[in-house]
Amino acid sequence: MTGEKVVIPDGREEQERLEAFVASHPKKPVVVVQGLGFVGSVMAVVIANALHRDYAVIGIDLPSPASYWKIDAINQGQMPVSSDDPKIDHFFKQAKLKENFIATHDAHAYALADVVVVDINLDVQKDSDEQRNLRGYEVDLSGFKKAMRSIAAACKPSALVLVESTVPPGTCEKIIRPIFQDEFEKRGIAGSVKLGHSYERVMPGPGYIDSIQSFYRVYAGINEDSADAVEDFLKTIIRVDEYPLTRLQSTTATEMSKVLENSYRAMNIAFVQEWTEFAENAGVNLFEVVDAIRMRPTHKNLMRPGLGVGGYCLTKDPLLASWASRQLFDGDPLPQSEAAVKINDRMPLHTFRVIRQKIKSPLKGKRFLLLGVSYLNDVGDTRYTPVELLYDQLLAEGCEITLQDPYVAFWEEKQLQIETNLESVLTTNYEALVLTTAHREYRENPALREWLREFPGRLWVFDAVSGLTREIIHDIKTKHQMAVIGRGDF
Amino acid sequence: MTGEKVVIPDGREEQERLEAFVASHPKKPVVVVQGLGFVGSVMAVVIANALHRDYAVIGIDLPSPASYWKIDAINQGQMPVSSDDPKIDHFFKQAKLKENFIATHDAHAYALADVVVVDINLDVQKDSDEQRNLRGYEVDLSGFKKAMRSIAAACKPSALVLVESTVPPGTCEKIIRPIFQDEFEKRGIAGSVKLGHSYERVMPGPGYIDSIQSFYRVYAGINEDSADAVEDFLKTIIRVDEYPLTRLQSTTATEMSKVLENSYRAMNIAFVQEWTEFAENAGVNLFEVVDAIRMRPTHKNLMRPGLGVGGYCLTKDPLLASWASRQLFDGDPLPQSEAAVKINDRMPLHTFRVIRQKIKSPLKGKRFLLLGVSYLNDVGDTRYTPVELLYDQLLAEGCEITLQDPYVAFWEEKQLQIETNLESVLTTNYEALVLTTAHREYRENPALREWLREFPGRLWVFDAVSGLTREIIHDIKTKHQMAVIGRGDF
Repeated sequence: MTGEKVVIPDGREEQERLEAFVASHPKKPVVVVQGLGFVGSVMAVVIANALHRDYAVIGIDLPSPASYWKIDAINQGQMPVSSDDPKIDHFFKQAKLKENFIATHDAHAYALADVVVVDINLDVQKDSDEQRNLRGYEVDLSGFKKAMRSIAAACKPSALVLVESTVPPGTCEKIIRPIFQDEFEKRGIAGSVKLGHSYERVMPGPGYIDSIQSFYRVYAGINEDSADAVEDFLKTIIRVDEYPLTRLQSTTATEMSKVLENSYRAMNIAFVQEWTEFAENAGVNLFEVVDAIRMRPTHKNLMRPGLGVGGYCLTKDPLLASWASRQLFDGDPLPQSEAAVKINDRMPLHTFRVIRQKIKSPLKGKRFLLLGVSYLNDVGDTRYTPVELLYDQLLAEGCEITLQDPYVAFWEEKQLQIETNLESVLTTNYEALVLTTAHREYRENPALREWLREFPGRLWVFDAVSGLTREIIHDIKTKHQMAVIGRGDF
Repeated sequence: MTGEKVVIPDGREEQERLEAFVASHPKKPVVVVQGLGFVGSVMAVVIANALHRDYAVIGIDLPSPASYWKIDAINQGQMPVSSDDPKIDHFFKQAKLKENFIATHDAHAYALADVVVVDINLDVQKDSDEQRNLRGYEVDLSGFKKAMRSIAAACKPSALVLVESTVPPGTCEKIIRPIFQDEFEKRGIAGSVKLGHSYERVMPGPGYIDSIQSFYRVYAGINEDSADAVEDFLKTIIRVDEYPLTRLQSTTATEMSKVLENSYRAMNIAFVQEWTEFAENAGVNLFEVVDAIRMRPTHKNLMRPGLGVGGYCLTKDPLLASWASRQLFDGDPLPQSEAAVKINDRMPLHTFRVIRQKIKSPLKGKRFLLLGVSYLNDVGDTRYTPVELLYDQLLAEGCEITLQDPYVAFWEEKQLQIETNLESVLTTNYEALVLTTAHREYRENPALREWLREFPGRLWVFDAVSGLTREIIHDIKTKHQMAVIGRGDF
């Protein structure tokens, strides 16, 4: 829906609409959620369906071509994210029935808020060459600072500002707090803002709502009052009896906690890459090795070989940390965490190399079927998907590529229409198949197996994500030529 | 006992003794365990007390000054390892009662064996500068090859050779197998050796025996027969009902599995170092951050800050892997795995830097009490202990150092007598205390707390291993000056 022409309501009219909304919910605390993306929009419906308090919720985003459609969608009765979690629809319908969730672009909302939840993105600008070597990166805080200033300029002095965004450690103390001090001074407000940080661990997919409502939360405030206010708020929306909250001593600690846990995961993924290459070279099936090691309770999170890493967090959070260490604390960079990003950025090139080595003859003109565009199984999320680099490389070699993904009808980043129906792409028109996402639709679809069995002649089959079952592999091996990334035993 | 003058029995006499031993155990398969160190000697008593078969066990080691004392000890009725696992004594006594375990230096033992278990060490020779920067390393296989040849030259053609040593992946296939082929050819034996690999996960300490008998095992053979023979053997000594065996496709896979799991752990430890420094710099208590993250099931093995890494495995196994990738498979080195060793090797320097920064005045002549020499809690194991580098640095600065460890009476590597009694070192004669091992004796000893409370004047207290309890820290903070590695909140 991006780029559609929309009519943005006039200022005075919109402010009256917001005030009328709040007035129609007397006694309910007003929560404004800033940012209506993958986190904010879902957070907003969770708050609108809070477990232990009734809130009036206003979602706010920018009136830009990239964002305004989300505001419009919510007000028209449509969630701006699509997901196979049935709870999202249910929660959204409930909120519509209660009429306690609207969206706006108007900063006047902040003046009405008792709580402002900040769910906007803070991006890293990577400077990489065409082989995805990361040469440098920058963290541009200007948009984020502007967003904070718009809250500080309008909010009630008593409002709680709860930052959920993943930010460089130190951001609340060293960047946000001074902005509020400055704006409050201009407004003649004595005292400090109530400011806290609690990071989300949202996982788009079938457990989308649960990843907010039923999961551990870490939080902190810039002072005791702020931390208490965050706790009071979170207790009303999260199942804290089952998932107790953890309070840390400072917002810098919670900010660090988020980027540390994601850096750890990014590094654990990166680590397996060199072993993938070693195993392939030594004729070892790394999957059976990893599975054997994972029997140890201390090694359960050892990763499996794959195409690469995607999504919004693991691809940048380690850099936010390293940037903060240097820029906010005059310290050293974090070389291992940075290395994880660098290795993961380039990981899809390994699959490309395997394809080139196995096929041997020039790839120019070869027809490829790529199954999967999303970076994650069973979800349609293409943000920083590793499929992109593989696709670009094959394209650069002059391959003809057919893309299919049951969850992605339109590949936003590439502005490409994608076929969602698997069977309609299972023609005989290919030299090679690459499995690039391990969607259940591929793993459990008899049509795919049948097609491989009936395919006239020999196909090159590459499984980059270990998505083919033993049975299919057994079938294929007798008929086609194949390679599974991380398995040297072919 | 190293270096003591011993009388090594004459060849013919020793061979007769071995033959008499075997003859006195008719129908029992004979197992020879090669290498009587931390793994082999304990493995030998486990086999002598096998769950489901009676074996006659002969331990064998070299008649060298460094090793012969172990043979002598076993034959005199003493285990060559000391441990607080009561099962070790019990198992050893049982074996002595059954008279089914003796030790020898004589290679004639191999001629009597039905199974040879290889538990000898394969060392890495590191080339590091005095700041412990790893400049290079070598894997010298000559001793290991010689040991294999001595088995091949004498063993029955039908014997199973089971390698438990941690070796560079590819060793069984590319190094050991050809040695046996060669020796068998010389001996006119047709057919191949039965050769397998199954790595141990021995953990010295209170669960020493259980770490062999009650833990998961991964194994493989160079062919189906070999793998079957390994399985048959392991099933008789390991509780496979609770800890099922995992068979892999090749010995290269099991060899890789061992060094991969240790590299993973080494890297997970190394990873925390840059975050330790970041946290200290940003005023964050990294322990509370790590504890918060560890609530996630996927992040349970995130490590805590500490002094460094010791022991025989994590300090070298990643290098064995990288060496094998280059030397045995013409592949690339494994940079992340190598980096883990490099970072861990230097980790104690961080504690040294913190000490220097905090104390500020020159360290020369300052009197230090270092509590803990062992690299591991509640065990007296000084192999590659990180305490050594810290000790060396303090010594180089001209500090006077008192060492204490309840489990280490003699520091082998430094040839130093160590005080095992804590109270006798708790005098007033220090300017600084460094906790270097988190032994329970330190964590739970009221005498230590009392001493700190009564100490006349101010002491510098450094906790490098987070071994001090909250209560002690609370006491100390009001009286002494202190720093805990990984806690920026002091």
